[in-house]
Amino acid sequence: MTEQPTYPTALGAADRERITLLGQDLAEDIMGKVGFGELAFWLAAQRQPTSGEVRVFEAVLAALADHGYTPTAIVTRLTWLSAPDSVQGALAAGLLGGGSRFLGVTEDTGRFLHTVLEDVDGDLPTDDDGWDALALATLRDQRTAGRLVPGLGHHVHKDVDPRTPRLLQIAAEEGLVGPHLSLFAAVGRVHPQVLGRTLPLNGAGVCGAALADLGLPLPLLRGFALLARAAGLVGQLAEELRTPVAEQIFLSVDLHNRPVAPTPWDER
Amino acid sequence: MTEQPTYPTALGAADRERITLLGQDLAEDIMGKVGFGELAFWLAAQRQPTSGEVRVFEAVLAALADHGYTPTAIVTRLTWLSAPDSVQGALAAGLLGGGSRFLGVTEDTGRFLHTVLEDVDGDLPTDDDGWDALALATLRDQRTAGRLVPGLGHHVHKDVDPRTPRLLQIAAEEGLVGPHLSLFAAVGRVHPQVLGRTLPLNGAGVCGAALADLGLPLPLLRGFALLARAAGLVGQLAEELRTPVAEQIFLSVDLHNRPVAPTPWDER
Amino acid sequence: MTEQPTYPTALGAADRERITLLGQDLAEDIMGKVGFGELAFWLAAQRQPTSGEVRVFEAVLAALADHGYTPTAIVTRLTWLSAPDSVQGALAAGLLGGGSRFLGVTEDTGRFLHTVLEDVDGDLPTDDDGWDALALATLRDQRTAGRLVPGLGHHVHKDVDPRTPRLLQIAAEEGLVGPHLSLFAAVGRVHPQVLGRTLPLNGAGVCGAALADLGLPLPLLRGFALLARAAGLVGQLAEELRTPVAEQIFLSVDLHNRPVAPTPWDER
Amino acid sequence: MTEQPTYPTALGAADRERITLLGQDLAEDIMGKVGFGELAFWLAAQRQPTSGEVRVFEAVLAALADHGYTPTAIVTRLTWLSAPDSVQGALAAGLLGGGSRFLGVTEDTGRFLHTVLEDVDGDLPTDDDGWDALALATLRDQRTAGRLVPGLGHHVHKDVDPRTPRLLQIAAEEGLVGPHLSLFAAVGRVHPQVLGRTLPLNGAGVCGAALADLGLPLPLLRGFALLARAAGLVGQLAEELRTPVAEQIFLSVDLHNRPVAPTPWDER
Repeated sequence: MTEQPTYPTALGAADRERITLLGQDLAEDIMGKVGFGELAFWLAAQRQPTSGEVRVFEAVLAALADHGYTPTAIVTRLTWLSAPDSVQGALAAGLLGGGSRFLGVTEDTGRFLHTVLEDVDGDLPTDDDGWDALALATLRDQRTAGRLVPGLGHHVHKDVDPRTPRLLQIAAEEGLVGPHLSLFAAVGRVHPQVLGRTLPLNGAGVCGAALADLGLPLPLLRGFALLARAAGLVGQLAEELRTPVAEQIFLSVDLHNRPVAPTPWDER
Repeated sequence: MTEQPTYPTALGAADRERITLLGQDLAEDIMGKVGFGELAFWLAAQRQPTSGEVRVFEAVLAALADHGYTPTAIVTRLTWLSAPDSVQGALAAGLLGGGSRFLGVTEDTGRFLHTVLEDVDGDLPTDDDGWDALALATLRDQRTAGRLVPGLGHHVHKDVDPRTPRLLQIAAEEGLVGPHLSLFAAVGRVHPQVLGRTLPLNGAGVCGAALADLGLPLPLLRGFALLARAAGLVGQLAEELRTPVAEQIFLSVDLHNRPVAPTPWDER
Repeated sequence: MTEQPTYPTALGAADRERITLLGQDLAEDIMGKVGFGELAFWLAAQRQPTSGEVRVFEAVLAALADHGYTPTAIVTRLTWLSAPDSVQGALAAGLLGGGSRFLGVTEDTGRFLHTVLEDVDGDLPTDDDGWDALALATLRDQRTAGRLVPGLGHHVHKDVDPRTPRLLQIAAEEGLVGPHLSLFAAVGRVHPQVLGRTLPLNGAGVCGAALADLGLPLPLLRGFALLARAAGLVGQLAEELRTPVAEQIFLSVDLHNRPVAPTPWDER
Repeated sequence: MTEQPTYPTALGAADRERITLLGQDLAEDIMGKVGFGELAFWLAAQRQPTSGEVRVFEAVLAALADHGYTPTAIVTRLTWLSAPDSVQGALAAGLLGGGSRFLGVTEDTGRFLHTVLEDVDGDLPTDDDGWDALALATLRDQRTAGRLVPGLGHHVHKDVDPRTPRLLQIAAEEGLVGPHLSLFAAVGRVHPQVLGRTLPLNGAGVCGAALADLGLPLPLLRGFALLARAAGLVGQLAEELRTPVAEQIFLSVDLHNRPVAPTPWDER
């Protein structure tokens, strides 16, 4: 006979009369009083965010919620076409596209900036000149090592990604430009000196920097991008309901398949 | 040569300078101005909700976000333990548990109430007596047909599910008690006359009624429960980061496996 | 202090020296001796199939493994494009399309035939005339009730789905034409008398009938279709590696998006 | 007007009379003639394997199909409990656990061995002494770099993982011990000289070496482990049908939750 382990949690709990969440009374203290973005932040950080933090956080979620016909959106619509019995399957399938290539930039940028900051000996810079110097040294190190700088460049917004100055502005209005955003902005200012051309700071990257400045868990930055995308994918399904395109997407591929002879693969 | 079809969408679109979402300028008109719950509603309904609608909607999302160690939460934690390289896989796996049994009540209740309302000949009731009469007739029909009434009963909250009166109160405060919530409340008042015992109106059910009253797409009611749960599952992962339990859950099963002889299955 | 429950299983178990699976020594009795189709059958039925059963089962899996650019295949390729870090995510996303519309016919047909057979009073037919009479009565009942007969009709193979006669032939060669296949074949013979036109028995349907005749669990017939498809999806990924098309599929949609004004949804 | 692109594929294709797969007539040339393991190999490699290759491949799949109550198995059962309407969701959820920690060893080992072999200047060794020398040099390099050797060590089979000698034996019987298996076996012989202790070559690792020797695509080695596991997970669901344990697993966690106070996270 072994003793059964217990499982601690500060999240949801219930007894016959009451439901608690994060130590609050769900019905009395959260429902009707706490917004959804605020709650999502609170659930992840286990502390109630300030109203300024909520505004920055929700701006990040808005920036990442939907980008039209991305692979994740197409996948969600096609999966619903094929398995209309399962909304959860359609959403899950779409989120599975949220990996290293499309949503990864947010996480990569946040982690990259964090690593640079952790490696600083002594105090962090306190003015733009200081951040510029740190950014310059960082970019040169990356260039020497042959590594890309995450968050720099965008295939459509070749001059400016409009989300970037806007998020920096919102963070400044709320007094929440911390070291990650400061360093990221400096990267935007100095990189032409190192790379020899001017690239935009992209929206996914600035979101990663902002989430890191909010003190959210770095290993989960991708999780916030996925949460934002979940709202977008519900929107995609709602639009598919009234203006279906998935069947046409499917047929545009299937009817234009071109049978070819097998090509044996051999790694050996 | 076939002409390439085009794919209409009112969701995200981008050109070199600008990103639009739902016909709005994402950076200028949404980021920093539109909350996450409001945006999720807007994406699904393709119309901006009122502040009262946002409050009811966010109360629903809060009610459904997390219930502690549900199968979805356990699944997300175990999947992350097993595949820590993929946050998207852990979230997707958890959401896949959002089906007929655990999250389905929200959708079932909304659809059930809607069907009853559509079948009403003439005008809908305008006072409690009228709703009570409709609820009584409905419950008797269900009983005759041997069918359960979705949204009634809860395995823990045997007297009152605290989310139900609270959501009704919030909807009343915002002037948003529509026909679905009215009928649902009446079911709560009259069912003892038909069933011979008193059951609570559960939180999942009242959420379905509220979402239907908000005019959100009925085939997607489960989608909103999944969106709420996505926030909860990010919270579960964030807690697993600091207080891991997944390994212990896994071992509590694996170390207590009991090998038995195979039992041939035969349908024939 | 609660006693820890134990969890019985006849599947895999291991101690320091030995691994058992289904009561067999995995290394000595299964590896190198049991084929993959045979093992999959054994795992599901918890009994070793005969060689004839394996042949029919593997013919079913072959029939369902891949149909070119289905939504499941497109989804797997797009998900890998978007999240190349996660092969498991790409496969899982593709399988999520295996629902009621595309893979459901297999399960629906098996269950439908089984229900008819269970409702037969007395002995089952023993010759074609008897099966034809049962099929005729069944089809008339379905027609009266306004219900479709699963397994009948195909959007491409309008005359004959080549998998159907072939699977019936293989089952006959192995002496494994049981009541489900007998009834299904009779449906193929007599339906023109009831429907007034001739439709092919489709491959998904005959596979469901064959799986039911093999005595496999009816609630899991879709699971075998998914297993077959898993092999097909690994093939799709292997082809995507050498002849990528996912990026072009994505761009063919994204570059042909057509922004339209939002259309407010209102169920009320 | 843009020309519609075409999408080449050597996999499934169909016209009104015929279905082809890999250039074969599906009904005539594959169904009833090609086993499921053989077909899975063929789909991935786009060449028909020899009977010896099929035997080694199926031994690998058998070795990886099921290990009892792994996280993947528990997740599949819990997801089915929570969403019994979706077999595809339960299987997909389970496969999502097939990531870097539990199934990754197969892929990591195959890739690692392949990298070592590619870096060999001149001819590969032709006898055990030659392989031992290469293995010794490789292990010393890894040790110097502070990197682990994938495929070495097992938390249960501390002396010998019984799958390893068996798979080596099967490959030898079929004349299919290629450079990856040769190097892996040498690692098993010489590592005590470098590490100062004796570890078993684990089954996941030897499977990766065998798959690489079969010439299958290295970026997809994890895909074969997932295919094997798909068969195992269908078995888990079939067992859950007759001997349910998921509810008890869920309750053993939920009923032993221990509410604790929130612990604010702060990365800053």
